[in-house]
Amino acid sequence: MSDGIRVTVWNEGVHEKEDEAVRAVYPDGMGWQIAQHLSKQEGIKSVHVSELDQQEQGLSDGILDSTDVMTWWGHMAHDRVTDENAARVQQRVLEGMGLVVLHSGHMSKPFMRLMGTGCFLKWREIGERERLWVVDPGHPIAEGLPEYIDLEHTEMYGEYFGIPQPDQQVLISWFQGGEVFRSGCCWHRGRGKVFYFRPGHETLPIYHDENVLKVIYNGVKWAAPSGVKEIVQGNVKPLENVG
Amino acid sequence: MSDGIRVTVWNEGVHEKEDEAVRAVYPDGMGWQIAQHLSKQEGIKSVHVSELDQQEQGLSDGILDSTDVMTWWGHMAHDRVTDENAARVQQRVLEGMGLVVLHSGHMSKPFMRLMGTGCFLKWREIGERERLWVVDPGHPIAEGLPEYIDLEHTEMYGEYFGIPQPDQQVLISWFQGGEVFRSGCCWHRGRGKVFYFRPGHETLPIYHDENVLKVIYNGVKWAAPSGVKEIVQGNVKPLENVG
Amino acid sequence: MSDGIRVTVWNEGVHEKEDEAVRAVYPDGMGWQIAQHLSKQEGIKSVHVSELDQQEQGLSDGILDSTDVMTWWGHMAHDRVTDENAARVQQRVLEGMGLVVLHSGHMSKPFMRLMGTGCFLKWREIGERERLWVVDPGHPIAEGLPEYIDLEHTEMYGEYFGIPQPDQQVLISWFQGGEVFRSGCCWHRGRGKVFYFRPGHETLPIYHDENVLKVIYNGVKWAAPSGVKEIVQGNVKPLENVG
Amino acid sequence: MSDGIRVTVWNEGVHEKEDEAVRAVYPDGMGWQIAQHLSKQEGIKSVHVSELDQQEQGLSDGILDSTDVMTWWGHMAHDRVTDENAARVQQRVLEGMGLVVLHSGHMSKPFMRLMGTGCFLKWREIGERERLWVVDPGHPIAEGLPEYIDLEHTEMYGEYFGIPQPDQQVLISWFQGGEVFRSGCCWHRGRGKVFYFRPGHETLPIYHDENVLKVIYNGVKWAAPSGVKEIVQGNVKPLENVG
Repeated sequence: MSDGIRVTVWNEGVHEKEDEAVRAVYPDGMGWQIAQHLSKQEGIKSVHVSELDQQEQGLSDGILDSTDVMTWWGHMAHDRVTDENAARVQQRVLEGMGLVVLHSGHMSKPFMRLMGTGCFLKWREIGERERLWVVDPGHPIAEGLPEYIDLEHTEMYGEYFGIPQPDQQVLISWFQGGEVFRSGCCWHRGRGKVFYFRPGHETLPIYHDENVLKVIYNGVKWAAPSGVKEIVQGNVKPLENVG
Repeated sequence: MSDGIRVTVWNEGVHEKEDEAVRAVYPDGMGWQIAQHLSKQEGIKSVHVSELDQQEQGLSDGILDSTDVMTWWGHMAHDRVTDENAARVQQRVLEGMGLVVLHSGHMSKPFMRLMGTGCFLKWREIGERERLWVVDPGHPIAEGLPEYIDLEHTEMYGEYFGIPQPDQQVLISWFQGGEVFRSGCCWHRGRGKVFYFRPGHETLPIYHDENVLKVIYNGVKWAAPSGVKEIVQGNVKPLENVG
Repeated sequence: MSDGIRVTVWNEGVHEKEDEAVRAVYPDGMGWQIAQHLSKQEGIKSVHVSELDQQEQGLSDGILDSTDVMTWWGHMAHDRVTDENAARVQQRVLEGMGLVVLHSGHMSKPFMRLMGTGCFLKWREIGERERLWVVDPGHPIAEGLPEYIDLEHTEMYGEYFGIPQPDQQVLISWFQGGEVFRSGCCWHRGRGKVFYFRPGHETLPIYHDENVLKVIYNGVKWAAPSGVKEIVQGNVKPLENVG
Repeated sequence: MSDGIRVTVWNEGVHEKEDEAVRAVYPDGMGWQIAQHLSKQEGIKSVHVSELDQQEQGLSDGILDSTDVMTWWGHMAHDRVTDENAARVQQRVLEGMGLVVLHSGHMSKPFMRLMGTGCFLKWREIGERERLWVVDPGHPIAEGLPEYIDLEHTEMYGEYFGIPQPDQQVLISWFQGGEVFRSGCCWHRGRGKVFYFRPGHETLPIYHDENVLKVIYNGVKWAAPSGVKEIVQGNVKPLENVG
């Protein structure tokens, strides 16, 4: 990573085309909003935006080969991502690519395949207040954050959230309507890393919030590839003399 | 455990003696309230109540020798527990005794020694509402619970709670005033198990709540000794022929 | 569980039919060997043996409806288990069924779906020695074990094993040829529990070993359903008055 | 950390003074050997060596104030570190300082206080072979490593190792004599991070091994302070209007 992280922002890009209310908040799409922010940050080498209606759904080998970390936003068209592409994203994560899954991406095919669980939850759209509390204050994803992030108007996501217990739990949300939610969750999977981050919405300006953007950036850095470069599996000879 | 769990309910027992408001809610002390409930449950062989002002602070070798699981409630007199007794309780846990730490016991000496961290938190006493959400719905400590426990009037405990990330996170609390809290936390420590459970108060009737009592009972069962009976440590000979 | 655990031993049952060497060690099949042992243990209500070539691959709704914990042994015919059946087993686990995956079951479809990872490993068949060390000595799955299990002749499985870090790591294996392996691994998934246990082989008498059988039994008890009985997900109304 | 990590290498420094055999391997002491290596690495701003017989045992406020990450090597004089100094190191970790504990430091006072457990183990000094297998291949501490580290002659440490289950298990050792050991272990504690790394010895040239030094350097980077800068604890007012 010495010369910087290559990010692909995968954006479903369907809401933006169909709904003027979405364009009012994200004129160039949510993907561009996130990409624009990331591209200005230290240690980011490049940011590419992929969308569902592009060739190979924006998930060609060429694109994946030049991606260190992928962020994923999808909502209404999860099913249109092909099983083949979902499996390829999963496989890339197991081989080292970082994956930062945003908001409604909890039901995306790549995330569900990587979790192995139902990934469902409670939800409600009345624009209530959310407060995301940091519960692992020394975690790199909490870098530079206040002790909680305050979002005045959000969609609610509530427990039980059908995920494996996170390897590292960074953030837990409080909602005005009475629920809690595990909102910032880290997992190691194979040689890759997965970060799920709850906030986001297509018509609320969540991805304009400074702290939300900071968490996404921190998540991208945390998820950047690292570690052992080659793994041997399969049938092997003994390393010791076995009498 | 085939013939049942022997429980010692360790109760500081200071509030009850000094404050009539406490006696109004717990006429025989909080310890007796918990002990009485546990003693009626299946699989509990015996329940003994120990208090701070008893001989050896209710923590003699005789008592510890006949304790499978200890529950701990302390609040205003943590410092009066001797370091020697705190170390003995810690040591017993490492040797297999279960420990269920209740509410303000988060700052008790045995718990702090076992955690190795600051164990501090935010708090507030205005009798606000708490909702404890189950986030590990298949955990034995969640046995028979609704998806959340509703407590109308409680003391608030808020994050950041200075504990190691729980090995298993069972419950997370929502508070009316805007905070969240990791309220049901499991750790394995040595051959023993530790369960921290947040609810409790000396003048609020928390330990009369059916679900709160159920969690304490489930916690006692979960923390009951199990596993390997003998561990060898120190200098050992090789098991293999080392050329 | 008060009246006992209903176990289904799922056994691929292909080796046994094709290979006399397998029948020499397990005359009635590996499944029967395990089932026979479990059926004699305390707290086991019933044991049913399912095999791949039975109707609905031994995974009918009727069978699943009366299964609290399923053990899974497969090796050479993983691919013949239909995707639909694999998905049904996965779904049952998320709804509370325990799953104890044995040896080569690490590449079975239900296990791979639940893990979300590659699940591959190193392997070697030269009949070398294995020693399974208990590293969580107070875990219920270690109940009654010596500090290590000694298997004179086993197939080797070596790291890197492509699994999510276990929620609880109970056993780690040493192999004569120079490898280590995470051999006893626990995960909570949804409302269910998954235990992976490495030992096993179709022609080595591993499932005649007293300690191996003890771990399987302990794993079945640990994986038995528990917890919250009903979970609400989807769109919900607020529990609090949101101004 | 943008301008680099300030490291303090705490070295007991007793062996080196008493034993010529130690000086033969580490002429300037083990501390200097480690310090020298770290000081040449990218992202390390400064390296200071502290020793037990220095003023305030090399743990003055001045030194701690300018330490981002401390490495700790002690063996024969753990007891001479004052309780006050051990408590100060523990407190600094909880406030964000990284701690990399080496080899026999497993019984040092700061480590034992932070773990809350017995921290004991099996050991043997016959110079046998050790192989440290990477089991979390995407972890930053595994950066640039081969799939295992081969050490021809080491002291053996064996399970059961009395530690809390690591938050992240990076390395597991195989020993020629038949044991395994959790050799590379990560914990978050408060705002700080702790990494335990097994290899090391006073008369074997372990800290001349390229991969061992790489792990120490990776551990220092992983343990560098990050996260939230200010935490509020104690009595707080509600953030919401509580009727």
